[in-house]
Amino acid sequence: MTVGDLGEFGVVNRIAGRLPQGEGVMLGPGDDAAVVAAPDARVVVSTDLLVERRHFRLDWSSGYDVGRKAAAQNLADVAAMGAVPTSIVVGLGIPAELPVAWLDALTDGFREECAEVGASVVGGDITRSDLVVIGVTALGDLGGRAPVKRSGARPGQVVAVAGRLGHAAAGWALLEAGAVIGSAALEEAVTAHRRPSPPYQEGPRAAGLGASAMLDVSDGLVQDLGHVAAASGVRVELDPEAFTVGEPVVAAAKELGSDPLEWVLTGGEDHALAAVFPPDVRLPPSWQVVGRVVEGEGVLVYGREMGRGGWDHFR
Amino acid sequence: MTVGDLGEFGVVNRIAGRLPQGEGVMLGPGDDAAVVAAPDARVVVSTDLLVERRHFRLDWSSGYDVGRKAAAQNLADVAAMGAVPTSIVVGLGIPAELPVAWLDALTDGFREECAEVGASVVGGDITRSDLVVIGVTALGDLGGRAPVKRSGARPGQVVAVAGRLGHAAAGWALLEAGAVIGSAALEEAVTAHRRPSPPYQEGPRAAGLGASAMLDVSDGLVQDLGHVAAASGVRVELDPEAFTVGEPVVAAAKELGSDPLEWVLTGGEDHALAAVFPPDVRLPPSWQVVGRVVEGEGVLVYGREMGRGGWDHFR
Repeated sequence: MTVGDLGEFGVVNRIAGRLPQGEGVMLGPGDDAAVVAAPDARVVVSTDLLVERRHFRLDWSSGYDVGRKAAAQNLADVAAMGAVPTSIVVGLGIPAELPVAWLDALTDGFREECAEVGASVVGGDITRSDLVVIGVTALGDLGGRAPVKRSGARPGQVVAVAGRLGHAAAGWALLEAGAVIGSAALEEAVTAHRRPSPPYQEGPRAAGLGASAMLDVSDGLVQDLGHVAAASGVRVELDPEAFTVGEPVVAAAKELGSDPLEWVLTGGEDHALAAVFPPDVRLPPSWQVVGRVVEGEGVLVYGREMGRGGWDHFR
Repeated sequence: MTVGDLGEFGVVNRIAGRLPQGEGVMLGPGDDAAVVAAPDARVVVSTDLLVERRHFRLDWSSGYDVGRKAAAQNLADVAAMGAVPTSIVVGLGIPAELPVAWLDALTDGFREECAEVGASVVGGDITRSDLVVIGVTALGDLGGRAPVKRSGARPGQVVAVAGRLGHAAAGWALLEAGAVIGSAALEEAVTAHRRPSPPYQEGPRAAGLGASAMLDVSDGLVQDLGHVAAASGVRVELDPEAFTVGEPVVAAAKELGSDPLEWVLTGGEDHALAAVFPPDVRLPPSWQVVGRVVEGEGVLVYGREMGRGGWDHFR
């Protein structure tokens, strides 16, 4: 059965039927708009647009994978402000020939990724499109905390990361090379490309620990920390020896003859969190100190300025 | 100059530079997420996805038109809940060859349509795409009012509309027929297709007047009131004599030999508001009573059930 067989309203009803609504949802899918609790009286909002063949491939990722990934990258943006995600809305462009089973899997992916943080899919829009296009907007609540911006880094502070780095990039490289995925470590890298696993709870936690700047690593650590450096008017110095390189990254680098650290420093899409803390902070083991903030500009690795080394959609 | 010449971050900075932020905005574009005031402690959220060649054509609409229209249809959804829009975020997929001037005009369109209601464009995302794709999400504040849902219509109540009906459909038909736009009335119809002019302030006003159900007319009055009928478990009877058919609709119908009432009853995209009120309500002149709610189901015109008569993206 295809989407065209069901028709627009059949599709809408089918999607809504797979989406339980959490307690913060005052009005879910089916009306002109949804209504969600915003107890803090401020709402955090972030949006992303994903386009087939650019952000995902239907032959490399299942509908479920795409749903989880699309939700994850927005939920991570909300967490990176120090907020707890409450809900997402999804705008969906799909071909009439798309199997309904794919759409069901996509919906389940959205639902399950939201469930990781207690958020709900509260609404959406569906239209026809030759390629699959997905617009996701996530909302979150700050719970009385100040938002942690990119501009708060100060010389003397330390830079730390939580979550995986380089895994998704390694997985992408394996798929692109057509490598045989013959071990659990390589499989984990590919899975990381298909479904990032952002450390959501570390966002509000970092805010509570006094993080003065934070973002989620979506384009690559060096490039993203470049935004912190520029917004804060400081230089970030990274110590490459300080990174623990994940086993999947090491295995993929061996398989492809690549430099694992390159993926760690420039690979995007894992949606790790990078934050800047006061020097005397006591960080839990989920946060790893990998550098420091000094006077100046840009991001230095081994004392040298890195090229941008990240993703530009138009370059 | 094209988008490709500027690069992703050049484009982002250029867009942000054209977007002043209103007072309810605590953190605007440039971080992982925006932060917007939600004084009511509930937030209204609605999203739509627009795809080139399906929702707009680059040869029929300017960037400015597309920006206004994309913003309008979401702001109207928020108003249709009885809420005041506060902000929008925009996910944008564009080709690298797109002229920057078109993007500037699009941005200006978003900004100006938001200015109609005092809302701000607080954030977005940009990616490359062969066709222009626009995902808009609007947020709004209920100001202590209950949201006006589709399910509140009760037998004995009256149905009323505010705003234009059939104008956008008439304009679309003129463009599709390649008609010569030789009068102010025809020009107005075409402009209505390019830039809807929803009666935003009538949404919260209707809520204050005791509206028990409301929606914005996006797919056609009969089809959209069908949603109210279904959600409320009632029948809606429309009196075609009660409609004031706009001069642009009359002129376009004469030009094309069409039935103007057909556009009024089934044409979408004007984003008028349709609401159901208690029978004893005293409505201001901006609201026109066009029917009533009775026991039963479906939507009747001239005592006969209309076909769905609206837009289905997959049929």
